[in-house]
Amino acid sequence: MSTEFDPVAVATGTQTIASQLNAIEWITDNRVERLSQDFYWFSPVLKRQLEHLRAHAVARPKTEDEVRAVVAACAQQRVPITVRGSGTGNYGQCMPLHGGVILDLSAYNQLLWCRNGVARAQAGIRMMEMDKRTQPEGFELRCVPSTFRSATLGGLYGGGFGGTGSINYGPLASTGNVLGVRAMTIEPEPNAVELRAPEALLLHHVYGTNGLVLELEVALAPAHPWLEAIVCFDGFDEAIHFADTLASAPGITKKSVTLLAAPIPDLLLAATPLLKGTMHTGSHAVFVLVAEPAEAALQQLVSEFKGNITYRKTAAEVRASNRTIVEYTWNHTTLHALKVDKTLTYIQSGFQAGRQVQQAKELRTKLGDEVLVHLEFIRTKEGAMNCSGLQLVRYTTDARLNEIMQIHREHGVYIANPHVYIVEDGKQGQVNPDVVATKLRFDPLGLLNPGKLRGWEQREQIMADAAAGRLMLATLPSF
Amino acid sequence: MSTEFDPVAVATGTQTIASQLNAIEWITDNRVERLSQDFYWFSPVLKRQLEHLRAHAVARPKTEDEVRAVVAACAQQRVPITVRGSGTGNYGQCMPLHGGVILDLSAYNQLLWCRNGVARAQAGIRMMEMDKRTQPEGFELRCVPSTFRSATLGGLYGGGFGGTGSINYGPLASTGNVLGVRAMTIEPEPNAVELRAPEALLLHHVYGTNGLVLELEVALAPAHPWLEAIVCFDGFDEAIHFADTLASAPGITKKSVTLLAAPIPDLLLAATPLLKGTMHTGSHAVFVLVAEPAEAALQQLVSEFKGNITYRKTAAEVRASNRTIVEYTWNHTTLHALKVDKTLTYIQSGFQAGRQVQQAKELRTKLGDEVLVHLEFIRTKEGAMNCSGLQLVRYTTDARLNEIMQIHREHGVYIANPHVYIVEDGKQGQVNPDVVATKLRFDPLGLLNPGKLRGWEQREQIMADAAAGRLMLATLPSF
Repeated sequence: MSTEFDPVAVATGTQTIASQLNAIEWITDNRVERLSQDFYWFSPVLKRQLEHLRAHAVARPKTEDEVRAVVAACAQQRVPITVRGSGTGNYGQCMPLHGGVILDLSAYNQLLWCRNGVARAQAGIRMMEMDKRTQPEGFELRCVPSTFRSATLGGLYGGGFGGTGSINYGPLASTGNVLGVRAMTIEPEPNAVELRAPEALLLHHVYGTNGLVLELEVALAPAHPWLEAIVCFDGFDEAIHFADTLASAPGITKKSVTLLAAPIPDLLLAATPLLKGTMHTGSHAVFVLVAEPAEAALQQLVSEFKGNITYRKTAAEVRASNRTIVEYTWNHTTLHALKVDKTLTYIQSGFQAGRQVQQAKELRTKLGDEVLVHLEFIRTKEGAMNCSGLQLVRYTTDARLNEIMQIHREHGVYIANPHVYIVEDGKQGQVNPDVVATKLRFDPLGLLNPGKLRGWEQREQIMADAAAGRLMLATLPSF
Repeated sequence: MSTEFDPVAVATGTQTIASQLNAIEWITDNRVERLSQDFYWFSPVLKRQLEHLRAHAVARPKTEDEVRAVVAACAQQRVPITVRGSGTGNYGQCMPLHGGVILDLSAYNQLLWCRNGVARAQAGIRMMEMDKRTQPEGFELRCVPSTFRSATLGGLYGGGFGGTGSINYGPLASTGNVLGVRAMTIEPEPNAVELRAPEALLLHHVYGTNGLVLELEVALAPAHPWLEAIVCFDGFDEAIHFADTLASAPGITKKSVTLLAAPIPDLLLAATPLLKGTMHTGSHAVFVLVAEPAEAALQQLVSEFKGNITYRKTAAEVRASNRTIVEYTWNHTTLHALKVDKTLTYIQSGFQAGRQVQQAKELRTKLGDEVLVHLEFIRTKEGAMNCSGLQLVRYTTDARLNEIMQIHREHGVYIANPHVYIVEDGKQGQVNPDVVATKLRFDPLGLLNPGKLRGWEQREQIMADAAAGRLMLATLPSF
């Protein structure tokens, strides 16, 4: 993608800003390398493309005023800003293509309020910290990634999709999950404005390319005492039908259902001694979190599908141990598997609600040992039970990796390609004109995470089409 | 159906028992008529068939010992026992075909305990009372009928199906909703035993024909502050798509979505001055209960589907007024409509999950003004979003009423016929051998609500088939 940044000017500009704003925490030593990266290296393709990327400096503001000062200075100096939470993404979302400033929001992390099942927090709050604060009031976040321990709420909003809990609430983007955000414009005199849903969603999952999210207001879920269990099955069919039935069962309160087909359990057993004895070797495992009163119902389904509960911890035991099986699900599965087999990578996919079991069986038969089935059961944005795949792939070549993704598409399975770093490329190439119009409003100079939003290159055409009535944009109130 | 009861012997036996057990509350005056009835008269067919029915006396025990004394005496005297909660059923479930004793459990109504989202209560507890007791602890019943104010938990279990809240938890029969029951055998020396799920479910929705349920242990739902709203639409299509979208939306916490197509809102407006000004005349109305933090999301969907919110009450306003729109939904809709138009009756139906909107539209086109569309959105037992119809029908003849039900069946819609009083006739004639085997265990003398369970006439064949291995029964542990 085209770039308008002169590397020397960016370097000099960043240096000027850092020395001007010396009351703010800056990192300019060798930690900049780590803070310029995320878990992009899960993908051999992204590893090759992105591993050289470095910001010139990292700013770690603690207040909105500090954020504003950095933003204003960057706008004056035309220095790119790449917003970072904890860098737990996997798509290189927070990696700067053109250097400049990493705006690390991890110290901008206050819980502002929590009442009546709604909470508002600064973007850099860690999700585990937020849950710890709201759980005593009976509520917790509706969906969290497996990286909840370090990942930030703003990071999930900017670079994520959903996670544990999406089995109830769908992805973060489902109507009703996010109520509003406060966002700042990237201008010499930055403006902070409140956007309510649905408009607020235009800043979601676009890698911080079209606005700087300062605060988020989210609806919470009732916090149940979650029982954690691993259920092992000899047969794949029993495992997937059990998982699908449990996921769908309306009377069983749950937070998570994960299917890890053989040989993934063996990879996890090899990866960490902590799991020793928790699964049968060679089995297909289903990781579940259900509310404690649902244990008898869980056992009923386990018997029905001829499974074995090989691990069980009450909510109190989980709390006391500070360990949760959530940290073996979603992309933590990939992380652990990569520890023991460096040739693995993964793909992300969305099945067709209602056909997910059939599709998963067909693809497993078709792709054999080359693709290891990992399914997370979640609701779609519209509310149907479905699953999202984070299949492990035995990587050979880029061409074969693309072929495997194409085979999934041909079976009606949507691919969220994790081997690309452009926003639209992960979404079947689709440009969202409203996202581009939002960037024009919040980042007229094009400084936010530049090079990641392809639609930005089409901004003139989009606005001309909108002005000529050839395109309807969502209403964006002016300010 | 055949009967083995001599009316004179039953009358004499009842008299003997009532005089023997004079420490227990008995009702033998003209209140026996009302206590022998329920809301069977919603059906012109049942009205003709059942209106003459009377018990010989009503016993109102307050303790398990008192229940046991009545049961033992009835077993000795071979007097039929028909268990009653508050008589809010519509199928004549608690109406005695052969006289004898009505066992009114409304005074056997203690909440035994409530902890960790589970509660246990005696069968006669009123559901409103139970909610009042558990809501301060953050929990409430998962599903209640519109008659929750007077209806009992045991009555719902014996004669009901689900209700408000089933949009989240499915019918009461969904795995995980009912954890166990304590049931008493009908013998000269009655035995009380605990049955856990799934076995406990064999006593559900069989009108108290196969066992006497003393206590129920149920999983509860988190209690949210429910905002009540009525949304009016000019077009039926907008109304049903709005209702279906709202019902399915995973990020919007809700308790109830009811579609009342025109002219039902006009009937309700005519039926009660309390509703004055709450709906537009001539409109299609959707009654909704959503959690208060979901109000903005609700408004978003209302705008999207071009509706108007014509009524809105916060949870605090609902509590203060002691009025809820729930009491205009489910069969309360029928009750109110019958006040202004005596020629109406209704049918109960279950659509095919995923096709409910299409089916409802097709049937509305086909049946025109003769059938007034009333849909309650609920999850199926398996968890898919669906709706249950309580369509109002302009009654002409029994033949036409049956024809209308047949037309629904031909469109793939399941009919729970509310114009029959035999358990199996409401369930497409299906005899459940496990239900019959349970009755043999709990009511070997056939005294419970006799004449309502057709399968009982086939008990010898069923047990012979089971003994010969031609039929598999669910395991019933002996005692």
